[in-house]
Amino acid sequence: MEPSHAAGPDTQEATTMTAGQQLRHAPPSLHPDVVPAYAPPESDSDESWVWSQIKAEARRDADDEPALASFLYATVLSHPSLERSLAFHLANKLCSSTLVSTLLYDLFVGSLAAHPTIRAAAVADLLAVRSRDPACAGFSHCLLNYKGFLAVQAHRVAHVLWAQNRRALALALQSRVAEVFAVDIHPAATIGKGILLDAAVIGETAVVGDNVSILHHVTLGGTGNAVGDRHPKIGDGVLIGAGATILGNVLIGASAKIGAGSVVLIDVPATSTAVGNPARLIDDDIPGESMDHTSFIQQWSNYTI
Amino acid sequence: MEPSHAAGPDTQEATTMTAGQQLRHAPPSLHPDVVPAYAPPESDSDESWVWSQIKAEARRDADDEPALASFLYATVLSHPSLERSLAFHLANKLCSSTLVSTLLYDLFVGSLAAHPTIRAAAVADLLAVRSRDPACAGFSHCLLNYKGFLAVQAHRVAHVLWAQNRRALALALQSRVAEVFAVDIHPAATIGKGILLDAAVIGETAVVGDNVSILHHVTLGGTGNAVGDRHPKIGDGVLIGAGATILGNVLIGASAKIGAGSVVLIDVPATSTAVGNPARLIDDDIPGESMDHTSFIQQWSNYTI
Amino acid sequence: MEPSHAAGPDTQEATTMTAGQQLRHAPPSLHPDVVPAYAPPESDSDESWVWSQIKAEARRDADDEPALASFLYATVLSHPSLERSLAFHLANKLCSSTLVSTLLYDLFVGSLAAHPTIRAAAVADLLAVRSRDPACAGFSHCLLNYKGFLAVQAHRVAHVLWAQNRRALALALQSRVAEVFAVDIHPAATIGKGILLDAAVIGETAVVGDNVSILHHVTLGGTGNAVGDRHPKIGDGVLIGAGATILGNVLIGASAKIGAGSVVLIDVPATSTAVGNPARLIDDDIPGESMDHTSFIQQWSNYTI
Amino acid sequence: MEPSHAAGPDTQEATTMTAGQQLRHAPPSLHPDVVPAYAPPESDSDESWVWSQIKAEARRDADDEPALASFLYATVLSHPSLERSLAFHLANKLCSSTLVSTLLYDLFVGSLAAHPTIRAAAVADLLAVRSRDPACAGFSHCLLNYKGFLAVQAHRVAHVLWAQNRRALALALQSRVAEVFAVDIHPAATIGKGILLDAAVIGETAVVGDNVSILHHVTLGGTGNAVGDRHPKIGDGVLIGAGATILGNVLIGASAKIGAGSVVLIDVPATSTAVGNPARLIDDDIPGESMDHTSFIQQWSNYTI
Amino acid sequence: MEPSHAAGPDTQEATTMTAGQQLRHAPPSLHPDVVPAYAPPESDSDESWVWSQIKAEARRDADDEPALASFLYATVLSHPSLERSLAFHLANKLCSSTLVSTLLYDLFVGSLAAHPTIRAAAVADLLAVRSRDPACAGFSHCLLNYKGFLAVQAHRVAHVLWAQNRRALALALQSRVAEVFAVDIHPAATIGKGILLDAAVIGETAVVGDNVSILHHVTLGGTGNAVGDRHPKIGDGVLIGAGATILGNVLIGASAKIGAGSVVLIDVPATSTAVGNPARLIDDDIPGESMDHTSFIQQWSNYTI
Amino acid sequence: MEPSHAAGPDTQEATTMTAGQQLRHAPPSLHPDVVPAYAPPESDSDESWVWSQIKAEARRDADDEPALASFLYATVLSHPSLERSLAFHLANKLCSSTLVSTLLYDLFVGSLAAHPTIRAAAVADLLAVRSRDPACAGFSHCLLNYKGFLAVQAHRVAHVLWAQNRRALALALQSRVAEVFAVDIHPAATIGKGILLDAAVIGETAVVGDNVSILHHVTLGGTGNAVGDRHPKIGDGVLIGAGATILGNVLIGASAKIGAGSVVLIDVPATSTAVGNPARLIDDDIPGESMDHTSFIQQWSNYTI
Repeated sequence: MEPSHAAGPDTQEATTMTAGQQLRHAPPSLHPDVVPAYAPPESDSDESWVWSQIKAEARRDADDEPALASFLYATVLSHPSLERSLAFHLANKLCSSTLVSTLLYDLFVGSLAAHPTIRAAAVADLLAVRSRDPACAGFSHCLLNYKGFLAVQAHRVAHVLWAQNRRALALALQSRVAEVFAVDIHPAATIGKGILLDAAVIGETAVVGDNVSILHHVTLGGTGNAVGDRHPKIGDGVLIGAGATILGNVLIGASAKIGAGSVVLIDVPATSTAVGNPARLIDDDIPGESMDHTSFIQQWSNYTI
Repeated sequence: MEPSHAAGPDTQEATTMTAGQQLRHAPPSLHPDVVPAYAPPESDSDESWVWSQIKAEARRDADDEPALASFLYATVLSHPSLERSLAFHLANKLCSSTLVSTLLYDLFVGSLAAHPTIRAAAVADLLAVRSRDPACAGFSHCLLNYKGFLAVQAHRVAHVLWAQNRRALALALQSRVAEVFAVDIHPAATIGKGILLDAAVIGETAVVGDNVSILHHVTLGGTGNAVGDRHPKIGDGVLIGAGATILGNVLIGASAKIGAGSVVLIDVPATSTAVGNPARLIDDDIPGESMDHTSFIQQWSNYTI
Repeated sequence: MEPSHAAGPDTQEATTMTAGQQLRHAPPSLHPDVVPAYAPPESDSDESWVWSQIKAEARRDADDEPALASFLYATVLSHPSLERSLAFHLANKLCSSTLVSTLLYDLFVGSLAAHPTIRAAAVADLLAVRSRDPACAGFSHCLLNYKGFLAVQAHRVAHVLWAQNRRALALALQSRVAEVFAVDIHPAATIGKGILLDAAVIGETAVVGDNVSILHHVTLGGTGNAVGDRHPKIGDGVLIGAGATILGNVLIGASAKIGAGSVVLIDVPATSTAVGNPARLIDDDIPGESMDHTSFIQQWSNYTI
Repeated sequence: MEPSHAAGPDTQEATTMTAGQQLRHAPPSLHPDVVPAYAPPESDSDESWVWSQIKAEARRDADDEPALASFLYATVLSHPSLERSLAFHLANKLCSSTLVSTLLYDLFVGSLAAHPTIRAAAVADLLAVRSRDPACAGFSHCLLNYKGFLAVQAHRVAHVLWAQNRRALALALQSRVAEVFAVDIHPAATIGKGILLDAAVIGETAVVGDNVSILHHVTLGGTGNAVGDRHPKIGDGVLIGAGATILGNVLIGASAKIGAGSVVLIDVPATSTAVGNPARLIDDDIPGESMDHTSFIQQWSNYTI
Repeated sequence: MEPSHAAGPDTQEATTMTAGQQLRHAPPSLHPDVVPAYAPPESDSDESWVWSQIKAEARRDADDEPALASFLYATVLSHPSLERSLAFHLANKLCSSTLVSTLLYDLFVGSLAAHPTIRAAAVADLLAVRSRDPACAGFSHCLLNYKGFLAVQAHRVAHVLWAQNRRALALALQSRVAEVFAVDIHPAATIGKGILLDAAVIGETAVVGDNVSILHHVTLGGTGNAVGDRHPKIGDGVLIGAGATILGNVLIGASAKIGAGSVVLIDVPATSTAVGNPARLIDDDIPGESMDHTSFIQQWSNYTI
Repeated sequence: MEPSHAAGPDTQEATTMTAGQQLRHAPPSLHPDVVPAYAPPESDSDESWVWSQIKAEARRDADDEPALASFLYATVLSHPSLERSLAFHLANKLCSSTLVSTLLYDLFVGSLAAHPTIRAAAVADLLAVRSRDPACAGFSHCLLNYKGFLAVQAHRVAHVLWAQNRRALALALQSRVAEVFAVDIHPAATIGKGILLDAAVIGETAVVGDNVSILHHVTLGGTGNAVGDRHPKIGDGVLIGAGATILGNVLIGASAKIGAGSVVLIDVPATSTAVGNPARLIDDDIPGESMDHTSFIQQWSNYTI
C-alpha cells in the first residue's frame, strides 16, 4: 500500500477532528439540505486508486482460485466502478423472497450516484480498515467480506432515505442489514467516515464521528424516560473495545478509548480511557508514562482483533 | 396511538403480576393440556384494532413509497388477518433451500389458527413494543422489521410443538430462528406475553413472565452439573439491560431491574436493582428518592435503545 | 448413548492435554505439511457408530414428523456417509446468490475426503456436544441445528485452504460462516477437536486446544500495536463462559475456567479460575474445598446453557 | 389398479356425453352461479381411494430411492390430503421471484377447499391418465410429473377466478402455467373432467367436454374478424392427435377422432374421423370393419405416446 | 383504446411497407452503424401514452386484487418508466442460479437506455397486440404475461449485442429466452416492429418485417448444404398461422398469408395466400370475392387465438 | 475446428450404421448388464481435445465479456473436467424448490463417473452439433446453451436409472427435463450417440440410432391398443425435419429423410425420403438426379435451422 494512504486516516484527519462538545449541541443528523454530513470527496484519485487496487486484487485471486472466479467476476470484475460493484454486492446480500434484488440494486445505484459523499465515505472506510486492521488481506477482502463495512455502507443509504422522509423504506433496509450482517444501526443515527466497525447496535439519536473504531458486540444504547435525544455521541478517533456498552446521551470525547466489556453511563473526556463495569477513568493521558506502569491496560487500549 | 393502549402494558398488567416465588416452584413450561401458558385473548377488539392500524400504516407507506409497496402488499395488505400476515412473513423469513416456505407457512397458519392464545400474545407484544420503545415507528414497523418480535412469535409455535412432543420439528424451527434473527430460545423455555426482546439466548428450563423487556445480547443460561431445572426464572415486568448475563436457576423477582453488562448468579428480589460483574444489589426501592442521588444508575434502569 | 463415549471427552483426553506454555512458543497454525493439527482418527468405529446413530435418529424423527421428513431425507437419510451429509448441509446453509451451492458442495466433499483428520475432529465434536450439553437432543440435532458445530466444521475446511495458500477462498468462506452462523473464526486460527462452541469471534493468531468449551458471545481478540502473534492461546479442556472477552497473546492454561462476562488481559494458570472485569484469579484449585464456600462462583464454572 | 376404475372413464361416461350441438349454442363458460361446470364429485370414495394409492406409491418410492425421498415427503407424504399436496406442488412449480410460493399456495388451498368440483375433476383426470396412458407408472407419477395434468388443475383454479371477475390474477396464473408447463389455456376456456392432455394452446371461447384426450402440440385456435365466440367446441370423448390444429368456432362431435398433424377448419360429426391438411373425413364409423382395411389410419386413431 | 391507435398499426404503416424483393437483396441484419433496423420512435407521445395506460391498468388491478398487488407494484408501479419496468421484468424472468438477476437488469437497463429504437419497437408491439389480439385484456396484460412479447424484447437486446460482436452474451441470452418463453430467435435474426408473436423458432439469417403476426409453433428454418443466407425473409404485414413451417431462403411477400400447418418451401408473392403440406397458392387476391366462396380458407386467414 | 473431426460424424460412422431391421427385432432398451447401449469411448483424446476447446472458448469469452465471465467460470472454467462441468450445469438448470441442486449434482457426478459411455456419447453429440449445425458458434455454445443437447445428456442418466430399476427417480428427472428444456424423452427410450436434437417428444419404446438429427417439434409417438412395443425405431443417420410426427412401431431405415411437417404412419426404407401428411415416399435415391428436378424437396432434405 502507498505509505501516504497508510498514514492518511491516522494523522491527517486527526487535525480536522470535530470537537466533542460541538457534537452534542449541534447533532448533524438531519441537515436542511437532506444530505448526510460527510465531507465532499477529498479527491477523485482516492476513489479511482482504491478501485484499481480492488480490481487488481480480484483479478489475481480469480486467476489463482478458479472456484472463486465466478464470485469475483460477478461482484467486482464485471462492474465499471466501485459504486456499481458495491450496489450489486449489497443488493444480492440483502435481498429476500419478498424484497427482490433488482429493486434493492436500483435503490443502491441511484443513491450512490446521487450522493458522492457516500462514495467518498466508503473509500475512507476502506482506507481505514486497510490501515488499522492487521487481519485485513486487501481492499477487496474488506469490500466483499467485512460485515461491518457493508452494513455501514447500507446504513448511509438508509440514512439518506430517512432524511428524505422515506422512513418505511429506511427501516426495512435497517431490518435486512441487522438480519444479514448482525449490525443494527438506526437509520436516523449519524455515522462519520473512516469507520472500522465489527458488530454493533447503534440507537436512533446516536452520533459517531470520523475515524472511529467499534469492535464486536458494542452497544450505543439509549436510556428510559427520555424520548428525544437519548443516545451516545462518539467523538472523532474514538476506539470502543469489544463488548462495550455505552448508554444514554453521554459524550465520548475525541480520541478517547473505551475498554472491552466496559459499561459507560457518564461522559468520557477527550483522549482519556475508561474501563470496567461501571466504567471508571484511568490515568492514561501521558502515553509515554502510561506505557511504563499500566501495561495491562495498554493491552486493550488500541485496536484489537 | 390510543392513550388507553399506551397505558395498558405499563399499568394494568402490573396489578396481575405473577409472584416470582410461584414461578420457581411451579414452572408453567409443560402444561397437561399441551397448551402454553398465555392467558386467553383479553378481547377480540385488541386484535382487530391492532390489525386495522397495521393495514392503515402499510397502506400509507405503500402509497408514499412505491419501491416498498410490493413488499407491503406481499407481507400485509394481501392478507385477510394478522395471523395470516404473520404466518406468511415468518415462513418467508425462515425458509431455506431444504425447508421450503410453503411447508413452514402451513405450520404457522395451522398453529396460529389452533391456538388463539398465541395470537393474543402477539398482540400484547405489539402493544408492548409500541408503548415502550421510543424508536418504534408503528405497529407495522414492529411486525415487519423487529427481529426479536418475530423470533418470539416463532418460538411460541415451537413451544407448542415441543409440548406436543414434536421435538425434532421444534428444534429445527429454533435453529432457523437463531440463524435468521440471532435470537436463540430453546423451544422448552416458557415466555409470557407483552414481551419486548432484542436479541437473547434463553435456555431450556428458563421461564420469562409477562411484560418483560430483554435488550441486546442478553443470556439466560444454565450452569454445569445440574441436568434438570437449571435456568433463570424471570418475574413479570422485569427489565434486563443490554449485555446482561443471568446464569443458573435463580429468580429475578417481579419488576426488578438488571443493569446493562451485569453478570447475575444469585436471586434478585422483586422491584430491586442489580448491577455489576458479579452483580450486587443497589438501593433503588424508593423510586422517588433514588432518582435524586443515584442518577447514574437510573440512566439504564428503564428501557433503552 | 454408550457410557464409554459419554466418559470419553471428559476424562481420557485430559491426560493428553497439550501444555499451555508449549502452545505459545510453538503455535501450530501453519504446519509444513500444509495439514492442520488434528490427530489422526482415533478409530473408524467412532465415525461409523456416530453416523449409524444419526441415521437412526433421523429415521425415527422422519417417521414421527412428516413435516420434517423432507428435510431429514435431504440432509441425512439420502446420504451414504457423515461426510456427504455434512458437506451437503453446509453447502446449502452457506450458499448465496453469488456463491452457488453446488460449488460449495464440491469444495466440502473434496476437503472432507482428502482430510480424514477433519472428519475425525467432527466426530469428536459431536461426541463432545452430546456429552457436555444437557440440552442436546441427539447427534442429529447437533449435526443439523447447532450453529457453532457447523461453523467449526466449515472453519476446518477454511483452515486447510488457508494453509494451502488459497486465502481468498478461505476468507470468502469465513465471511459466509460469520453471516449465517454468527461465528467469526479467522481461517488462520487453529482449533482443536472435541470443541463445544456457541458463538464467538476468534482472531487470526489464536490457538484453541482440544476439548475446549466456548459459550455465547465470546471474543478471543488481539490488541493494538502488535501485528504478529497477537491473539489468545487457549489450552486443552478450558471452559470460557458466556460473554467473556480474552484479549492479546495471553495463555489460558489447560483446564482453566473463565467466568461469564469476564474481561481477561493476562495469563491464567492451568486449572485456575478467572472472573470479573478486569478478571482476577480466585481460589478454586481445591475443588472439594471451593464447593463449600465459593458456591456463587461454582455456579458458572461448568458448562452452561 | 381396480378393474372398475380402469373401465370407468372409457365406458360409463360415454353414455352421459354432452351433445355437441348443445355445446355450441349454450357455451357453459360463464355460469350465473360463478362456479365452473364440473359435475359434483361422484363419490368421496374415489378421492380417498386415489389419495391412498398415491400415498402408498410415494412411500414405496421413498423407501426404494433415498435420493427422491426428500422430494416425495415434501410433495406428498407430509400432506393430509390430495388437495393440500396438489396445492403445495403447484405453488412450488409456479412461483417466481415476483410471485412467491406462499401466496400461490394460499390461492390454491383456498380454491380447492371452496370448490369440491375441482377436486373431483382432478380425481377424474388422474383416473383417466392412469387408464388411458400405457406409460403412466402410477397415480403419483401423474400427480407429480405430468405437465398437462398439472396445467389443467391450475387452469381450473384460474377459470374460477375468471368467473369471479378476478381477471388479472387469472391471466397472471395462465401466464405462469404457460411458461412452466408449456400448456397455454385461456382462463375463460371451459374444460371438462377426465382429461388427458399433453401440451396445447386453447383459446378463450373454446369448450372441451369430458373424457377428452389431447396429445402434444395441439392448438384449439380462433379465427380472424370474429371477436366473440371464435374457438372450437370439443365434444365428450374426443381424441385429438399430436400436432393437430383446430381453428374457429367449429364443432368436433362426441367421440370423434382427429388425426395427428391434421388442420381442421370445419365441423367433424360425432364418432367420425378427420385426417390431413386440410382435414377430410374418412370412413371410420363402423369400427369392426375399419380395423380390417384402413389399418394405417387405425394406428393413430387411439391414444398415443 | 383510442381509435387512432387501433387504426395505426393496421393502416398507416402499410404505406411504409418495405418491399419484399428488397428484403432479400439487402438484408438489414448487420448494419455498419451496429444498430438494428428499427425506425426512430415515431413520437414520444406514443410511449408515454402507453406507459400511462399500463400504470392505470396496474393500479386498477392492484386495487381490485390484493393477492396480485405485490406482483404489480414490483413489476410496474414501482418503476418510473416503461423501460425500467420492462428491464426489471425481463431480468427476473430470465435470471437463473448462475445468471443473477441484477446482472441481467444492468444489461437491459443499459441497452434500453442506449437504444431508443428498441423502446419504440416495444411500444409498437404493444399497440399491435392490443389491436390485433381479441384476447388481449390490456397493455399491462401483454407487458407482464405474453411470452412472445417478452421474448421479442429480449431478442432485440440480444440482437444489439450480436451486432456489437458480443456474441457469447447474445447467445446466452437467446438460450435463456428459449428456455423460459419457448421462443427461440437467433440473435442475428432481424425482427421488425409491430410484431405479434406467440411461439416460434427463427433462424440466424431470417428477416421479419414490420407488423408481422406469427402464431403458435411456427418455424422459420434453414435448409441444408447452404451455410450462408439460408432462412426465410418475411415481408411486412405477413400473417403466419399456427404450426406453419417455412424453410430456406424463400421470400414471403408483404401482406401474404400462410395457412396454419402449412409447409412452405417456395416464394409466396405479396398479398397471396399459401396453404397445405407442401403449400400451394390459392386464389385469394380479390378479397371481396374470396369472402364469398372460399370461406373455409378465410377462417384461418386472419389473426387467431 | 480440426478437419478430421468435422469429417468424423458424417463419414466414418456411416460405415458402422446399425441395420434398421435389427433395431426392431432386438430393441436395446433394457440390457441384461443394466448399462445403455453406447459404444465404449472411441478414444480418450476426443474427450480431452473437446474439453480443451471448450475451456479455450470460455476463457476467450470471459476475457471479452466481463458480464458473462461469472457465468463462464461457474459453469466451465472452475471445473477440472467436462463431466464435472456438465454435471454442474445440468444440476443448476434442473433444480427446483423441492429438488435441490446439490442432490442432482451428486446424481450426475456419480452417473457420469460410473458410465464412461455416457461421457463418450456426450462428446460425440458435441462433435455432431459442431459439424452439422451452421449456427453453432463453438463447443462451449452447445454445452451451455443447447436445450436439446442438455436434455439428451440428462436423458442418458435417466436411462441408466431406469435400467437399474430406479424408475421413480428416472421419471422425476424426465419431468424436470421436459419442463426446463421442452424435450420430453421417456427414460426407457434408447438414444444413440452423435445426436443433434432440437425439441422432441420421444415415447417409451422408441429407439433412436446413432448420428440422427431431430429438429424442432418432432414427435415419436405410440399408437393406441398396443401396450407393449408401440413407438418408432429410427435408424442410424436419419434426418427428421421440423414438426414431423412419426407414430407407431414403424421403422425408419438408416439414412432416410423425413420431411418437415410430415405425418409418418408406415415404414420408410433406408436412404429414402418421405414427405407430406400422410407421408408418401418420393424418388430421392439417386442424389445426383434428384438435385436436378426435385429441388423443392431437396431444400428441406438436409439439416435446417
